[in-house]
Amino acid sequence: MLRNLSLLLDLYELTMAESYFHYKRNAFATFDLFVRELPQNRSYLVACGLEDILDYIKELRFEKEDLAYLKSKNIFSAEFLNYLSSFRFKGDIWAMPEGTVFFAQEPIIRVTASIIEAQIIESFLLNTINLQTMIASKASRVAYAAAGRPVYDFSLRRTHGAYAGIKVARASFIAGCLGTSNVLAGKLYNIPTVGTMAHSFVMSFKQEIDSFLAYSNTFPKNTTLLVDTYNTKKGIENAITIGLYLKEEKHRLSGIRLDSGDIVSLSKLARSMLDKAGLNYVKILASGNLDEFKIKDLISKGACVDSFGVGTNMGTSVDAPFLDVIYKISEVTDEEGNFLPTMKLSKGKITYPGRKQVFRIRAKGGRFIEDVLGLEKERIKGLPLLIKVVDKSRIIYKTPPLDRIRKSLNNNLLNFPGALKGIESKYKYSVRISKQLKMLRQDLTRQLEKRQ
Amino acid sequence: MLRNLSLLLDLYELTMAESYFHYKRNAFATFDLFVRELPQNRSYLVACGLEDILDYIKELRFEKEDLAYLKSKNIFSAEFLNYLSSFRFKGDIWAMPEGTVFFAQEPIIRVTASIIEAQIIESFLLNTINLQTMIASKASRVAYAAAGRPVYDFSLRRTHGAYAGIKVARASFIAGCLGTSNVLAGKLYNIPTVGTMAHSFVMSFKQEIDSFLAYSNTFPKNTTLLVDTYNTKKGIENAITIGLYLKEEKHRLSGIRLDSGDIVSLSKLARSMLDKAGLNYVKILASGNLDEFKIKDLISKGACVDSFGVGTNMGTSVDAPFLDVIYKISEVTDEEGNFLPTMKLSKGKITYPGRKQVFRIRAKGGRFIEDVLGLEKERIKGLPLLIKVVDKSRIIYKTPPLDRIRKSLNNNLLNFPGALKGIESKYKYSVRISKQLKMLRQDLTRQLEKRQ
Repeated sequence: MLRNLSLLLDLYELTMAESYFHYKRNAFATFDLFVRELPQNRSYLVACGLEDILDYIKELRFEKEDLAYLKSKNIFSAEFLNYLSSFRFKGDIWAMPEGTVFFAQEPIIRVTASIIEAQIIESFLLNTINLQTMIASKASRVAYAAAGRPVYDFSLRRTHGAYAGIKVARASFIAGCLGTSNVLAGKLYNIPTVGTMAHSFVMSFKQEIDSFLAYSNTFPKNTTLLVDTYNTKKGIENAITIGLYLKEEKHRLSGIRLDSGDIVSLSKLARSMLDKAGLNYVKILASGNLDEFKIKDLISKGACVDSFGVGTNMGTSVDAPFLDVIYKISEVTDEEGNFLPTMKLSKGKITYPGRKQVFRIRAKGGRFIEDVLGLEKERIKGLPLLIKVVDKSRIIYKTPPLDRIRKSLNNNLLNFPGALKGIESKYKYSVRISKQLKMLRQDLTRQLEKRQ
Repeated sequence: MLRNLSLLLDLYELTMAESYFHYKRNAFATFDLFVRELPQNRSYLVACGLEDILDYIKELRFEKEDLAYLKSKNIFSAEFLNYLSSFRFKGDIWAMPEGTVFFAQEPIIRVTASIIEAQIIESFLLNTINLQTMIASKASRVAYAAAGRPVYDFSLRRTHGAYAGIKVARASFIAGCLGTSNVLAGKLYNIPTVGTMAHSFVMSFKQEIDSFLAYSNTFPKNTTLLVDTYNTKKGIENAITIGLYLKEEKHRLSGIRLDSGDIVSLSKLARSMLDKAGLNYVKILASGNLDEFKIKDLISKGACVDSFGVGTNMGTSVDAPFLDVIYKISEVTDEEGNFLPTMKLSKGKITYPGRKQVFRIRAKGGRFIEDVLGLEKERIKGLPLLIKVVDKSRIIYKTPPLDRIRKSLNNNLLNFPGALKGIESKYKYSVRISKQLKMLRQDLTRQLEKRQ
């Protein structure tokens, strides 16, 4: 949807690249993209965004107009701009497939490439993983709280722009939502779309019942009536009138929507009124400022809600509107082309050196009990989570259909401890640092402190 | 940048449109887009996003593939899809120019059009104003806190996707930032771009000083050295070595960047070390988890910081990652085509009926003292903030150059009470409801309660 994103990067990627071009043209490096710490209210994260990264890698090139703009800044050399004119990403990328459950410090993406190439893709990778993983992680909680009841993404109007709106629909579908109100996302990703009516529709008719009648005559097989524009009880009565009218016409009113007020008592009232009228098949959809906490609360109080429309709080990941994603160099070649591990020593900002893998350890019976962050070459009995997706510029991974990702996430979550998934969970899943990695880190700390 | 956004809407806009098409094809309506309540930590908002809305209105049409997708859903009639095939927005839009300071309940955009047209543009308008106004409002606070020191947008990697990254750069520039790290935004909007170096650059060389030397040899006229990769004091010493070397070569080291640790003491240390070495012209840039509160705190503690790179917290408006923007119908025509005021009665969700205008009242001397929300036709002595931007489909407003918007916002802010602008301000600027509007609302409440 977005074309020509080669310049979507921080200027320093290009100034560093120019300097590398003169002083380290042949250097290679490995970078890890990971989340330093889990945000509040998150005991796990759900990887999302890889598909867009692979598309970006495939398309990445600097067009004439990009180069003309860079030239106009008068800071880049002609030789470097010439290099950019035939720039392609020619390295390797390892990544966790979308829908993978992961934790802090675990690389989600690992890039090994010419240091210039690895650096130039940094901003896009971080930006993409930040948004989509943040939303998938939030939506996974919302879906979990709904305990089997359908959840729909209603967030388009409050997401951070058009592009976020579409990505939120996709990420939340992967994480367990059943559909979205966002038509473009529905078209692009083949996600089921849902819609009811707005208050403005009701208000544009003289009487509420007139609006209900018009809508149900237009969509006799698929009408959900918004009942809270004026007086909710009266709205439910009007909906019942329409439900009975549709019944006579051999149709079924699909549902009513409650968007304000005390959803617990109103939904109980609505259910009992509908049932008494012989409309027990009419579903009740709740919406309006919902999140995982409110959904859990509604369910625990016995609200008669069949499904939830969740907007702003999910679509902006309101309680944690960013992830602490970083992209850190972990090894770089010396003059002879040997990869040497490296890391930062800044206080409080630990990174792990070397080319790493994440191993997921199962107990007998299949349950996951621990992850181990180790060196790629270590022999650790566990499922390696990073798989190769780009091999010397060639994309060798195809994103599965979204419903397959969705199912696989769901199955995976079943294998984690129950305590991890509760929305108030403070459970800290064990991510162990392998002995070899620990030792490497200690040795390197000493070396670096001496060297500087 | 995003093409073909006609389907970027909530499905209900289209289902309502189909129903309007059958039952209210000739109805016209007015809708107000406004923020119901100011979020926490905001005493004013800065309008932003109009340019994209006008582009959208101009381009809006349903292409063949959009119609084919809608047809495939099997819920729309052939007549309605045919209507959509020649759909254009043909109504009027009034709006506050970008950079206008405004408050809760004040319409930022007012649409009068065929009810179908007015409804179909809802999602895009809300989505666009939500993002850009939210960011301009946050960035205005950040710039204010910096008290004249330059602030740069460094948020690309943590914004909600690629599109948000670009819009954040634009909105924050309007609101007072001096530049952005985002190269594509720089190109698209002619915003100054800035960049230093990353820790990875330093780490890719054997010694910190080698990386500093390489970079400054590449950009002798424009080098800012990141000094906190290993040991910040040693980093400053290395930067001084480079500064003196550049001096010998008749160049000036531009600056150093502090990205971690205690910025107050480190910046004081850096300043005194630089000054002692005869490098008093070398600037100190601070970055790393900054926001308006931290900037204010740094300045009040005497930190020797010349400029700030602000990322995540500004680029996600982290303390208020959405605005309570809504789009509410305020009048609709009856069978004879007369506009009748309307409004919602839902509890706790007040809206005002009728075609409204916002009047900004000045005291003698020019200071702003109050806004009045009134009916358009009322004679109120104040500057009307809504101006006509679309006249029967024709765009009659041209967005001024960004630096002009930026200057005009700055001048405007000077005319508001000082108490409004402090970042901890709880100051509530007076927005008075005109007598006529109050009366209209009372009468209509009675009417509607009776009618339902």
